[in-house]
Amino acid sequence: MIIVLKPGTSDEERENIVIRIEEAGLSPHVLMGKERVVIAVIGDERALQQQTLSAIPGVEKALPILSPYKLVSREFKKENTVIDVDGVKIGGNKIVMMAGPCSVETKDLLSGIAGEIKAGGATVLRGGAFKPRTSPYSFQGLGEEGLEFLAEAKKQTGLPIITEVMDPRDMPMMMKYADIIQIGARNMQNFRLLAEVGAHNKPVMLKRGLSATIKEFLLSAEYIMSAGNDQVMLCERGIRTFETATRNTLDLSAVPVLKQLTHLPVIIDPSHAVGKTPLIPSMAKAAVAAGADGLMIEVHSNPAEAFCDGDQAMLPNDFKSLVSELKRIAVAVDRDI
Amino acid sequence: MIIVLKPGTSDEERENIVIRIEEAGLSPHVLMGKERVVIAVIGDERALQQQTLSAIPGVEKALPILSPYKLVSREFKKENTVIDVDGVKIGGNKIVMMAGPCSVETKDLLSGIAGEIKAGGATVLRGGAFKPRTSPYSFQGLGEEGLEFLAEAKKQTGLPIITEVMDPRDMPMMMKYADIIQIGARNMQNFRLLAEVGAHNKPVMLKRGLSATIKEFLLSAEYIMSAGNDQVMLCERGIRTFETATRNTLDLSAVPVLKQLTHLPVIIDPSHAVGKTPLIPSMAKAAVAAGADGLMIEVHSNPAEAFCDGDQAMLPNDFKSLVSELKRIAVAVDRDI
Amino acid sequence: MIIVLKPGTSDEERENIVIRIEEAGLSPHVLMGKERVVIAVIGDERALQQQTLSAIPGVEKALPILSPYKLVSREFKKENTVIDVDGVKIGGNKIVMMAGPCSVETKDLLSGIAGEIKAGGATVLRGGAFKPRTSPYSFQGLGEEGLEFLAEAKKQTGLPIITEVMDPRDMPMMMKYADIIQIGARNMQNFRLLAEVGAHNKPVMLKRGLSATIKEFLLSAEYIMSAGNDQVMLCERGIRTFETATRNTLDLSAVPVLKQLTHLPVIIDPSHAVGKTPLIPSMAKAAVAAGADGLMIEVHSNPAEAFCDGDQAMLPNDFKSLVSELKRIAVAVDRDI
Amino acid sequence: MIIVLKPGTSDEERENIVIRIEEAGLSPHVLMGKERVVIAVIGDERALQQQTLSAIPGVEKALPILSPYKLVSREFKKENTVIDVDGVKIGGNKIVMMAGPCSVETKDLLSGIAGEIKAGGATVLRGGAFKPRTSPYSFQGLGEEGLEFLAEAKKQTGLPIITEVMDPRDMPMMMKYADIIQIGARNMQNFRLLAEVGAHNKPVMLKRGLSATIKEFLLSAEYIMSAGNDQVMLCERGIRTFETATRNTLDLSAVPVLKQLTHLPVIIDPSHAVGKTPLIPSMAKAAVAAGADGLMIEVHSNPAEAFCDGDQAMLPNDFKSLVSELKRIAVAVDRDI
Repeated sequence: MIIVLKPGTSDEERENIVIRIEEAGLSPHVLMGKERVVIAVIGDERALQQQTLSAIPGVEKALPILSPYKLVSREFKKENTVIDVDGVKIGGNKIVMMAGPCSVETKDLLSGIAGEIKAGGATVLRGGAFKPRTSPYSFQGLGEEGLEFLAEAKKQTGLPIITEVMDPRDMPMMMKYADIIQIGARNMQNFRLLAEVGAHNKPVMLKRGLSATIKEFLLSAEYIMSAGNDQVMLCERGIRTFETATRNTLDLSAVPVLKQLTHLPVIIDPSHAVGKTPLIPSMAKAAVAAGADGLMIEVHSNPAEAFCDGDQAMLPNDFKSLVSELKRIAVAVDRDI
Repeated sequence: MIIVLKPGTSDEERENIVIRIEEAGLSPHVLMGKERVVIAVIGDERALQQQTLSAIPGVEKALPILSPYKLVSREFKKENTVIDVDGVKIGGNKIVMMAGPCSVETKDLLSGIAGEIKAGGATVLRGGAFKPRTSPYSFQGLGEEGLEFLAEAKKQTGLPIITEVMDPRDMPMMMKYADIIQIGARNMQNFRLLAEVGAHNKPVMLKRGLSATIKEFLLSAEYIMSAGNDQVMLCERGIRTFETATRNTLDLSAVPVLKQLTHLPVIIDPSHAVGKTPLIPSMAKAAVAAGADGLMIEVHSNPAEAFCDGDQAMLPNDFKSLVSELKRIAVAVDRDI
Repeated sequence: MIIVLKPGTSDEERENIVIRIEEAGLSPHVLMGKERVVIAVIGDERALQQQTLSAIPGVEKALPILSPYKLVSREFKKENTVIDVDGVKIGGNKIVMMAGPCSVETKDLLSGIAGEIKAGGATVLRGGAFKPRTSPYSFQGLGEEGLEFLAEAKKQTGLPIITEVMDPRDMPMMMKYADIIQIGARNMQNFRLLAEVGAHNKPVMLKRGLSATIKEFLLSAEYIMSAGNDQVMLCERGIRTFETATRNTLDLSAVPVLKQLTHLPVIIDPSHAVGKTPLIPSMAKAAVAAGADGLMIEVHSNPAEAFCDGDQAMLPNDFKSLVSELKRIAVAVDRDI
Repeated sequence: MIIVLKPGTSDEERENIVIRIEEAGLSPHVLMGKERVVIAVIGDERALQQQTLSAIPGVEKALPILSPYKLVSREFKKENTVIDVDGVKIGGNKIVMMAGPCSVETKDLLSGIAGEIKAGGATVLRGGAFKPRTSPYSFQGLGEEGLEFLAEAKKQTGLPIITEVMDPRDMPMMMKYADIIQIGARNMQNFRLLAEVGAHNKPVMLKRGLSATIKEFLLSAEYIMSAGNDQVMLCERGIRTFETATRNTLDLSAVPVLKQLTHLPVIIDPSHAVGKTPLIPSMAKAAVAAGADGLMIEVHSNPAEAFCDGDQAMLPNDFKSLVSELKRIAVAVDRDI
């Protein structure tokens, strides 16, 4: 921690800051510069990060040196975390393909899509039974019935299930049906939900919030890990910017940034990021080339009749073609799909 | 709804779109332009807004004409909504001053602050017992004990209480202690929480999400109102932008925009918006001049020792001076504090 | 300057960094922390700010302590700069009202508007002869003829003229006609234009770029001042965010932030910020309450026929009413219009 | 163009709008909906796009149907534009590799780097002689001497030169030395510079502004093309967002979006986008996979001593390795480097 003092700070104020640092069990080093006095703090600054140093009289700003997260960091754990979901390894050399409809609609439709995406190369089935919709008048998901349809599709295809939880009260139900629990972008800082999911022993995919920084994203993952669950994967799905040509802006540089900072697997959801079917293949390819550990892609056999997000759903056949193209790129970056 | 067709769309595709509109009970009017064919749809387009028209073959884009929200809109209810909280009217000519510490810390400290802000001109006491913190290692609030301290402060000062709910499971506790339930910015699209709060009969203050558009903000309010609770006030507290000189960017133009679109009261929280105490008075004054119905301001008697957000807390005396300055501006815009 | 070393940096690498700092004439202080080694640099760090310290092997990051600008800073000059434009003082207690059409259209129309805004309370006439338009097919301004019309309007009303320069080659023409030269938002980082304007002795109003940080804004002002021209005023006119309910987002907190950091006058342009006439009065009032030194407002006698930006033009009568309301707020903040 | 009327608009106001449309030579179709009256306009709406329809009494909003640009659009010219720069084809199947230092520093250094990048696989040499720097105290480039060094490096290596123009007055000099003229991000809406470059017969690379939408980007390209120069290539180099983990946020989805909308070649500059050397390879690979027609990458033989942007410079050897990896990905998407 570096504490920069305001110009004209009195000796008494400075002494006061020094005492406060010492009280926190850390060592202050006062450096008298020409234009500013700076106090460098030696010791575990995380104790101080929780305090409001900048509200102390005489302090201009406090600059932290260390990252505020620990368990998720690459410094804490050097090797990549690999999560095993019913035999599907996520975070290893093989890139995982998650696919399926935005929301679960009918049993037959879901089973049909599940069969087709499996044939097309998917190894995890996605589908929402609880849907976070911007408008209260939009389709909100089938609820537990949707989870049952997912279970049925799993029985038929063997594909493990990823589905979203929106409410801590639904966790018992989720534990019964889901193989991976998804925390959606809008709930990335629903801290009670993070804590609840962290208290269960089940893989979690945490989606980045629409306007979450990488640091906040990792701190939300830290909530889950610090509650006891270390099977966490991260999903970039587009951030909110000024651009309206796409639904969101896919921040693909999050892949190498996260790979530096954390040992957790990184998944890319190009469907939500761009929001328009014709743009998805290009971004899916880019994600594989950039080093993503997996993709999550929306597939629907009849997008124009989809209950939600038909704009961004691929047809099963187009998904199949895409996967074969992705395999070539995976090989070119020494990976596998 | 206006549907723009792609250039080169076939007669069959066009006919198909027309049939789909008619099936939804609406009337299509086909207009053959030079460069594009456009279909204007007459009728209640909200039926179509839930569908994925742009996924139908031949459709380039679908432009909605009407806003997707209804109950919150000024068209639905012309006169301003005024909410009565224990005799404090919010949304009328008198501007409400909510103040207090970021989080409830100790009983004595809270009661002390409550007494001081009352003397300084506040009419509602704020204080968090459940705190949404970016880091799991930060102070998370006292929980129910904090609510008890708020109740005690209320008993001593008579000030009604506004406090934040983070979890639908806490609603019974909230109903017992809170006079206004706050939904924080990070939970603006926690739709299950909105529905839960909507199902209770208690005033709600909904804070705008960090990257929520005005339209999304109003749709979240619509969630609460459509669930049965019409005592909703809206709070702008800064949005996330590229600028780092302030904690967030206060979007003060949200005041006149919301006043046009909705009948609900509009509160401004300058403390969270700017995040630095010296900047707050200027923004508080601006908010009153812009037409806000109330302010929410963080006050702490010892900011440097605050458990959270000491950076943006005003001293009680400074708050008192500010209120007397605000009164002059209120008079200049024909209002009252 | 604080230099944070990567974990595991070798002694040799560290020594290398120390030597480099000493070579720049500064004093390094090496602090061996538990998790990181930090080097605090004593001396004028601006020498180092131009170097790429973070590209030196072993450096994790370099944190500057001082601001990179000097002449524009409040530390360099404590008292407010007051600019005298033909007797109109900008930056003093009296708030300046600049008004007029977006672009100069015809001589008669301009003279008519000039007369009306003068009667309504304006003390500076705005009008563009060279217009930066997003599309090449939009009206680009009358050029020198427009400047002549401005001169004519000035002759009739006595109002000094503010008009925009887009090209360094036009400076001789500008010197002839303009009393204040405006640098538009799109040219805030047109550094050659800044240098050219800096080399002339004429007041300048620099508009903040659509996505410029406050720091970059001040550095652009520093370009003008360091070239020799100290008659610079700053204008906030809305920044680009994700919100589309307004044309841009007015960052009104820029007023108190700039007042802390710089001695230069701060003007607010609510017209471009919100882009919709009905929203302008509210933001104009807020700007006065926030502490702005002046306003720039678009006024047109026939907005629906305006060659540009009719959406955001006020009628002369509405402008007059607004000024009388603003006067009341000015009084409430101990200022004058 | 679709014109939506306000609720409660009078017959006279509506008639007035109809007349105005007819006067512009277009055909209005009035559609009386339940909640709104809508007027669909048949004819070339570009005539109306320049007018301020929304300022006409009774108009709520005007929704354009057509894009405001023409010459740059894929509808205007279906086949890809391929630009020939001294035999290097840009926009064809072969992906172009532009590389070199941020700024030209010394003759020997430049020639050395040029030789190395050529050996590493580059076909165009980049280097700035005029540098747009945020601070007036940063190195501003060598000016014409820098251009001479570029000419020397070209003579030695045969690599054509891309270099930035900042001032219309420098165009004669640029015509003498440059093979591709670069318009930097900060000058994307320097409309006078665009017009000047458009009036010359020389390939241009236009960089996207930090906060420019795709639509604005294409309109700036339209400025150049409408002035007579059709040898325009577009370069995405990162946009400004709230994220600070990278210098800017690379909007890679701009590649498929631009490929849909325009026939012009699309180049990606990962160096400026991410601003940190270790992140560049990942984004370069992603760009090739996404379908970019070329890359621009900063290479310097001694980044820690670079006059600018050493943070984001690759070593020549690392560049060489990267190109060999990119070649594999190019093959996987049926292209060539």
